Amino acid sequence: MSGRTIRVSEIFGPTIQGEGAMIGQPTVFVRTGGCDYRCAWCDTLHAVDTTFRSEWAPMTPEAILKQVDRLSGTRPLTISLSGGNPAIQPLGPLIDLGQRAGYRFALETQGSLAKDWFADLDILTLSPKPPSSGMETDWQKLAECVDAAGSGPQTVLKVVVFDNADYGYARDVADRYPSLPIYLQPGNHTPPPPDGDDTAIDMEGIMDRMRWLIGKVAEDRWYEATVLPQLHTLIWGNLKGV
Amino acid sequence: MSGRTIRVSEIFGPTIQGEGAMIGQPTVFVRTGGCDYRCAWCDTLHAVDTTFRSEWAPMTPEAILKQVDRLSGTRPLTISLSGGNPAIQPLGPLIDLGQRAGYRFALETQGSLAKDWFADLDILTLSPKPPSSGMETDWQKLAECVDAAGSGPQTVLKVVVFDNADYGYARDVADRYPSLPIYLQPGNHTPPPPDGDDTAIDMEGIMDRMRWLIGKVAEDRWYEATVLPQLHTLIWGNLKGV
Repeated sequence: MSGRTIRVSEIFGPTIQGEGAMIGQPTVFVRTGGCDYRCAWCDTLHAVDTTFRSEWAPMTPEAILKQVDRLSGTRPLTISLSGGNPAIQPLGPLIDLGQRAGYRFALETQGSLAKDWFADLDILTLSPKPPSSGMETDWQKLAECVDAAGSGPQTVLKVVVFDNADYGYARDVADRYPSLPIYLQPGNHTPPPPDGDDTAIDMEGIMDRMRWLIGKVAEDRWYEATVLPQLHTLIWGNLKGV
Repeated sequence: MSGRTIRVSEIFGPTIQGEGAMIGQPTVFVRTGGCDYRCAWCDTLHAVDTTFRSEWAPMTPEAILKQVDRLSGTRPLTISLSGGNPAIQPLGPLIDLGQRAGYRFALETQGSLAKDWFADLDILTLSPKPPSSGMETDWQKLAECVDAAGSGPQTVLKVVVFDNADYGYARDVADRYPSLPIYLQPGNHTPPPPDGDDTAIDMEGIMDRMRWLIGKVAEDRWYEATVLPQLHTLIWGNLKGV
């Protein structure tokens, strides 16, 4: 045993990363359970809502890596650590164990909790939550996350944008960290309920928002921003485990 | 005048790059007219079919940059040189002129014609055409393109995949250039006719092919490949100039 157990909601793949800096790249997801946020439009409530806590399995780093190995055929690829907020979990030993086997690690978090082991990641995506989420950003905590990562991983920002207030927030985030790449992602206002995955999503609504977002960055000449939808939502709708 | 005139089919943007390595990034497109290929499923026949030659304007590098400046508000961004096959055109002086004004240059070509000025690009996408295109790859020419670029730009490969034969071709391309990143792109079998842009595309067909492609790379454990659709087709269908 190389560490405390990790609360795991699901492990699946290989599939492609559907969002952000690694979009389109094959990966295996390790989704942890539990979150310090509760965003209005959360699309992974099954890994957030404590009603589902009984479905989150405590696993050792060894047990997690064994399952990833089974899915990957032991051919290393990038493991995407997601949640919930994976920063809550003691992931340092898993990262260490996996990297020794040749895996790379990407982690996405809202940036509300900094950990020393952020420095060991290959890619860190900080995705602070805009006004439409109903959450309040603790800018000091976000700064601590950027600092904890240091020059270890490639650190990038990602902001979900539903409306003008969210867009203004994204610009503010970018102004605070001009040297970090920023990804803008149109929000999905028809997220899956936590206990099902067959709800239809409003594809046209997402595409409208995508066109609007592209228009905004073009109009504002904000050429440093990258605008990308959630590819997995376009491909599989709200289906989980893909 | 800093060079011979360039045959231009269209200049438009800022919009986002819809494909490959720069997906989601704001860019202005300069599409040149004329092509040494005639792919079965060509989606830019208005820049390929010589029937449309009268719509291709001969422009000086200065005139092109002036129009790009107008679109970009003189705030530099990446200029995407596309076609047709842009390698046919004398683009060296335009690249030189634009870079002095702070622009970056990305170029996509099938790799049938190598030019010295490839070395001056920021990103070179070589997109050799698979069997379904009806074209034959001249591997020697492709190698000359890779060599011409040298360590100048970031060079990446992109292969459109319609079926198993195309997929096998993509694997062959990757085997020839193991150090170059490779992007797989599901084909659009309902491309726009050259004289219209309101034809419906078969979105479900593209998404079926996307799911199939992701399944293939996962099954073959081909984790170096990146699988991405044509985002602009999903967002705007076959509409031109976006």
